[in-house]
Amino acid sequence: MEITTETKGEFAGWLTWPSEVFEYETAGPFYFKPDDRGYVSAFRAERKHMNAGGVVHGGCLMAFADFSLFAIAADHIDENYGVTVAFTSEFLSGPIEGQLIEGHGEVLRAGSSIIFVRGILSADGVPCLNFSGTIKKFKSRKAS
Amino acid sequence: MEITTETKGEFAGWLTWPSEVFEYETAGPFYFKPDDRGYVSAFRAERKHMNAGGVVHGGCLMAFADFSLFAIAADHIDENYGVTVAFTSEFLSGPIEGQLIEGHGEVLRAGSSIIFVRGILSADGVPCLNFSGTIKKFKSRKAS
Amino acid sequence: MEITTETKGEFAGWLTWPSEVFEYETAGPFYFKPDDRGYVSAFRAERKHMNAGGVVHGGCLMAFADFSLFAIAADHIDENYGVTVAFTSEFLSGPIEGQLIEGHGEVLRAGSSIIFVRGILSADGVPCLNFSGTIKKFKSRKAS
Amino acid sequence: MEITTETKGEFAGWLTWPSEVFEYETAGPFYFKPDDRGYVSAFRAERKHMNAGGVVHGGCLMAFADFSLFAIAADHIDENYGVTVAFTSEFLSGPIEGQLIEGHGEVLRAGSSIIFVRGILSADGVPCLNFSGTIKKFKSRKAS
Repeated sequence: MEITTETKGEFAGWLTWPSEVFEYETAGPFYFKPDDRGYVSAFRAERKHMNAGGVVHGGCLMAFADFSLFAIAADHIDENYGVTVAFTSEFLSGPIEGQLIEGHGEVLRAGSSIIFVRGILSADGVPCLNFSGTIKKFKSRKAS
Repeated sequence: MEITTETKGEFAGWLTWPSEVFEYETAGPFYFKPDDRGYVSAFRAERKHMNAGGVVHGGCLMAFADFSLFAIAADHIDENYGVTVAFTSEFLSGPIEGQLIEGHGEVLRAGSSIIFVRGILSADGVPCLNFSGTIKKFKSRKAS
Repeated sequence: MEITTETKGEFAGWLTWPSEVFEYETAGPFYFKPDDRGYVSAFRAERKHMNAGGVVHGGCLMAFADFSLFAIAADHIDENYGVTVAFTSEFLSGPIEGQLIEGHGEVLRAGSSIIFVRGILSADGVPCLNFSGTIKKFKSRKAS
Repeated sequence: MEITTETKGEFAGWLTWPSEVFEYETAGPFYFKPDDRGYVSAFRAERKHMNAGGVVHGGCLMAFADFSLFAIAADHIDENYGVTVAFTSEFLSGPIEGQLIEGHGEVLRAGSSIIFVRGILSADGVPCLNFSGTIKKFKSRKAS
């Protein structure tokens, strides 16, 4: 699947999947790049991500965590594509507007057809979402 | 929390929480109303909800499922508010643009502080997401 | 995998998998049979299943729920075998010694390689565990 | 809740909760002790833990993971007790008879009433189960 590099703004130099309408245009844009822990994913919490309680909506965090699954597993999907089969999350804290939301995680096992990933989202370094996901690989493009 | 009734379009007469920015303006609007199975939640899948594979993004389905948790549990939260503590989902199929996504479910147990909910999202009647959620109640407004 | 019919006691006439050491000899025996809702699984809560709080141990309920996954999906596994890939549960109440624990559920989707199941355990008819599981099918015997 | 120290065998010097019938007598005994990563939990896989496929039963791993939740969170429960509210797991590999099963993990957040824990079980050092759990604290004894 097409990957492009952001050219401007806070996330200049980060990677993104622009053909992902929901996560790039609607809920996002969400970004990722390689770092010393594998891959890091990120977005800046804006008013559009908020719930009525003044923190980032749980559904927004889960959408970003689903994006993060594929960032974390990027090296294991390559020319194939994957779909999320199962996803779990626990809500640790509520990020507020303006905070930097980042995701990190690990591929726990990458089998021939199933990839297991776990990760944590944090807001300015404070954990806000714990998540795990099971990805099924198919032959061709990524799609979440 | 403020609930309003939609006045126009396909979901005229349905209820919504307009102060929920992410689920009302960004990912949604998502709607709900009482029906013969308790509450039904719904939205129409549009291009903005799609992933690169041409089906509704998993993160969008989870955001809507999180909305649906609170619709299903509406009678148990009343003047308090609740936050999602834990959420799980399995992805059964990928809805396409134009389909009506609906959520139904049950409150499995409503304790003094914890509410357990399970539900299923369907697309034109075909199950697409199985989910369960644990809500913690607080004194005051709803927030997801 | 070998299925046998119990010949004595409360569960005479029920089916079981006797080569499953943990679930037949150690934690169980657990039983299942066809009923008007598909399949029902069952065991009688004894002292050996208890936790220090005087209710059935959560791990025992999860072991029985894992057994129940395969009972619920029995018609979809046939001569193949399956392994649980992911499992989630919420604890609704704590059954006490002497209660009949039963499991019911549904196959939400049976694909060529992945089967999605959800179910509820109850104790004398009161829901005690909500669960969902994802099973991966292989060619040959069942194994959990 | 009563904690005792094992006096003989491979786990001499380890701690256990002997009033937990299921996890101490039936499925276990399971053990834990402080280590440089917080707490480690352990048991030796025996024939009684096996499934029909010749690996440790998934339900046994989940029962041990539930035990491990409370070991990992031991410092946060103290004179209160806790119950598992929600539990999720992914099955990474199947340990065989004779392997040492160990659990490690982290308390992700310990609030006034809810504790979030995640962990990984391994068999002779190879990850076999990823899990997360949500514990609700009560005033008095532990019970899972």
